[in-house]
Amino acid sequence: MNHIGDRLIVEGRRKRTALVVGLDPDLRYIPDVVRQGVDPETGEGAAEAIYAFNRIVIDAVAEHVVAVKPQLAYYEIYGADGIAALEQTIRYARSKGLLVLNDAKRGDIGPTSAAYARAFLGEGPIAGDMVTVNPFLGSDGYMPFIEAAEAAGKGVFVLLKTSNPSSGELQDLKLGDGDKLYMKLAAELGRLGARSVGAHGYSCVGAVVGGTYPEEAAAIRAALPSAIFLVPGYGAQGGTAEALRPFFDARGEGAIISSSRGIIYAYRNLGEQWPSLSEAEISLAIGEEAARAKEAINAVRGAG
Amino acid sequence: MNHIGDRLIVEGRRKRTALVVGLDPDLRYIPDVVRQGVDPETGEGAAEAIYAFNRIVIDAVAEHVVAVKPQLAYYEIYGADGIAALEQTIRYARSKGLLVLNDAKRGDIGPTSAAYARAFLGEGPIAGDMVTVNPFLGSDGYMPFIEAAEAAGKGVFVLLKTSNPSSGELQDLKLGDGDKLYMKLAAELGRLGARSVGAHGYSCVGAVVGGTYPEEAAAIRAALPSAIFLVPGYGAQGGTAEALRPFFDARGEGAIISSSRGIIYAYRNLGEQWPSLSEAEISLAIGEEAARAKEAINAVRGAG
Repeated sequence: MNHIGDRLIVEGRRKRTALVVGLDPDLRYIPDVVRQGVDPETGEGAAEAIYAFNRIVIDAVAEHVVAVKPQLAYYEIYGADGIAALEQTIRYARSKGLLVLNDAKRGDIGPTSAAYARAFLGEGPIAGDMVTVNPFLGSDGYMPFIEAAEAAGKGVFVLLKTSNPSSGELQDLKLGDGDKLYMKLAAELGRLGARSVGAHGYSCVGAVVGGTYPEEAAAIRAALPSAIFLVPGYGAQGGTAEALRPFFDARGEGAIISSSRGIIYAYRNLGEQWPSLSEAEISLAIGEEAARAKEAINAVRGAG
Repeated sequence: MNHIGDRLIVEGRRKRTALVVGLDPDLRYIPDVVRQGVDPETGEGAAEAIYAFNRIVIDAVAEHVVAVKPQLAYYEIYGADGIAALEQTIRYARSKGLLVLNDAKRGDIGPTSAAYARAFLGEGPIAGDMVTVNPFLGSDGYMPFIEAAEAAGKGVFVLLKTSNPSSGELQDLKLGDGDKLYMKLAAELGRLGARSVGAHGYSCVGAVVGGTYPEEAAAIRAALPSAIFLVPGYGAQGGTAEALRPFFDARGEGAIISSSRGIIYAYRNLGEQWPSLSEAEISLAIGEEAARAKEAINAVRGAG
């Protein structure tokens, strides 16, 4: 099956989950057992620790998620070594049957967007199955991503209404005709997605809609029925499972809910001794939290 | 001198230039002498060829530019190997006394933007002196970059009005109060820049204003007198030197003009035999085109 909309729906049904786990590895929050090889002065060994941590996370969450979502910034800090850890992480996730969504938020003028699309949706070492895209440069900035996704059966998630507190400063601006910016963009993405709708009703053009904005989600869902929503903001950013209902379609599908820090650092809730926990202990805490998040989301979307 | 606004002005005076050359290495346009080690099947050797090409470009343009501007997409295609070539390129440019402006167009929610700011404005292997930033997520998305720049004496260039044909789709949207989006954003950046204005009148908060939009530039210049403009679009994208006047201040300063393909692939104008040119020939063509662009821009800004 070479259509990302169909793959996400089918995988979600098979594994009974709408959860995506973000891989945002931050050495400050990684236990000693994983980061013991890192030189605190030079940072040497950081990339190895990041990959070792990601393996633990992937093993712990694999049965509960449809995809993992590496957040590029946390790898770029370490330059080529960090990107090597990303490459290893992508290969490892795929070997576990997981889809890979690179949270890169790229966007540029046409020829450069085409180069980014090649990097993230092509065949190269950091390419995954999906990528997040920033639409600020307009259609000639995001079309190369959509065209690459259509050609490869892969997916893009265009930022529409992001989860952060100040997302409204630009995204909610009221235009001369009274519409908000994100609704105008939603209408445009709906037109573009119409040409790649798959057997299960969803296209390769998804949208990022923050879990912290359920009212906006209802309006966007109505305007954009064939877009899968990538929903960040659940968990550490304050979004609750109850608020997620309007993000799903009538069957409880069509959205993937992303949580990063709330799951991958779940062991920090075990108390101040978290840095000295064993690998088995951190793995258990991460897996239990992923299962809990999956079930909380399933209850809300009627898949419980 | 630890203030990017001052450094750009002083370097521009010392070298009598407002030119920046973009490093967008694309193997399709690189001569055989440089790419002969690249395996056409596997792409192996591509990163080495990219770095070899960038060294030729940097040597040829160093006396004509204040900074080089690596375009991240062209390195990310090759994953960790490509980022290793970027690291080498940054070190080499600095060894030649050049400032480095990473054209990354990053932007995310707060904690992730802070991680990107650390990657590009910190002390790590891909950090340079300046970075381009996408403001679509609002102030909590771009403030971590501005704060990192202020702390380090480095610079950010926030996308305001980009050079591409469809930049107006979002950036020119008329808001309820009649203003265009980019003018509202310009006003906000003006307030933020006010706290880091240096001895020469410019702050660490610059703006990207496309050379293809001179009328918009005049309005933005008036609203944002202490922002250095990064002006792409000159050359291959169709912007002319004559159109650049409104981007500069009354002294002919305050803007850096970026050209990429028009300069680094200048030897392709020598005819169909370009793939077989020698290193000396391509170096000469690149250097001459950089000198020509520098002088054309100097004539317009009154520094000729």
